[in-house]
Amino acid sequence: MIELEMRKLAGSEILHAYPQGKAGAALPCIVFYHGFTSSRLVYSYFAVALAQAGFRVIMPDAPDHGSRFSGDANARLERFWPILLNNCQEFSALRQAIISQGWLEEGRLAVAGASMGGMTALGIMARHPEVKCVASLMGSGFFSSLSRSLFPSPDFPAELAEWEVEHQLEKLATRPLLLWHGEDDDVVPAAETFRLQQALQQQGLDEQLTCQWQAGVRHRITPEALDATVTFFQRHL
Amino acid sequence: MIELEMRKLAGSEILHAYPQGKAGAALPCIVFYHGFTSSRLVYSYFAVALAQAGFRVIMPDAPDHGSRFSGDANARLERFWPILLNNCQEFSALRQAIISQGWLEEGRLAVAGASMGGMTALGIMARHPEVKCVASLMGSGFFSSLSRSLFPSPDFPAELAEWEVEHQLEKLATRPLLLWHGEDDDVVPAAETFRLQQALQQQGLDEQLTCQWQAGVRHRITPEALDATVTFFQRHL
Repeated sequence: MIELEMRKLAGSEILHAYPQGKAGAALPCIVFYHGFTSSRLVYSYFAVALAQAGFRVIMPDAPDHGSRFSGDANARLERFWPILLNNCQEFSALRQAIISQGWLEEGRLAVAGASMGGMTALGIMARHPEVKCVASLMGSGFFSSLSRSLFPSPDFPAELAEWEVEHQLEKLATRPLLLWHGEDDDVVPAAETFRLQQALQQQGLDEQLTCQWQAGVRHRITPEALDATVTFFQRHL
Repeated sequence: MIELEMRKLAGSEILHAYPQGKAGAALPCIVFYHGFTSSRLVYSYFAVALAQAGFRVIMPDAPDHGSRFSGDANARLERFWPILLNNCQEFSALRQAIISQGWLEEGRLAVAGASMGGMTALGIMARHPEVKCVASLMGSGFFSSLSRSLFPSPDFPAELAEWEVEHQLEKLATRPLLLWHGEDDDVVPAAETFRLQQALQQQGLDEQLTCQWQAGVRHRITPEALDATVTFFQRHL
């Protein structure tokens, strides 16, 4: 049995889920980031599955998504990369608020996400050594190069370079990392995950890396992907 | 704030969600059916959204899915149509169990679903006049003809003919019905929903029909689809 609420935290609207009766308890916490043009509500099944497994889950709405959506879908389509950057930048305040609430069992904070949220999770892993482990589904850590084919824009924010993994692979090697990707992904190519796996392997940085692929699956989360995420956090968080 | 649990009901594993403190209260209830190769857990965001709106939500796992999965994914792929039939047939016992629990505010029972679950919802609407309103997302009610292109099988169950809508369109006209479909659906063609809309219109049976289409969307549930479902039940249930 779990409880789930929509509420404000650190000035942001979040979805908050936890095992019944643990509203104020110090628990292992997972911050989960949803995908582009989606919302915390549409991805709330991750909160359900992870809270059922005993974790506290905090899911923010990305800038211009869900409760923060301006209503202009076309304008938003032009802002994929700035929104990704903001998502990464907002993590610090969110983490501080989680700690201030007394919600976090010390040292047991994880980050996860899917699609744009998977990219957010990798960016945060690269910059935040205090995160204990990370799961990135259908994501990519190679923002600059991916932006040549995915939402190409003259306004690609220079600051995103600080968050991408290419020049700081060693930051991903110090903690457990799960990468999951459907092999036939038609939005974020599975090659992005393969490239990261190869790069980590070639430098001997893959000891704590788990890669899971699913044949015949496009850009969607399967029951197997959800199970893999829960199992990963049960083992590592 | 909502509460959500996994439990047994009528011999089946269900997901059960409701507004906090209403575990045993008589409420308007929605039975929601998930899609093929998916699970109640992966679709639990519908339970979250609908329970947030004040409804009790019951989501069964389909036969050979989720908690009922045999583990043989290939064998399951051959059984789409028998599983759809079983889904429809199991509704009666589920409904009776919901009533026996004292969970249902009299007369306020609805059915909904997505993909295979959307087909299940239409089948149940055709055979169960006690259902007050129905939402079918990315579904179809034309089982026999669709089975020529979708999971064609020599073992198409003859009993499914009793559940399909083709010969009983008038049964769909007596209560509010929401159809939602992504226009670029690459699994269940949006033409299935268009065909049902046309058939109802041509016979003057569309007075209580709401059709919503979303451009540029393939076989997936968008935030807009989720919102449309919640709004529909707020208005009609």
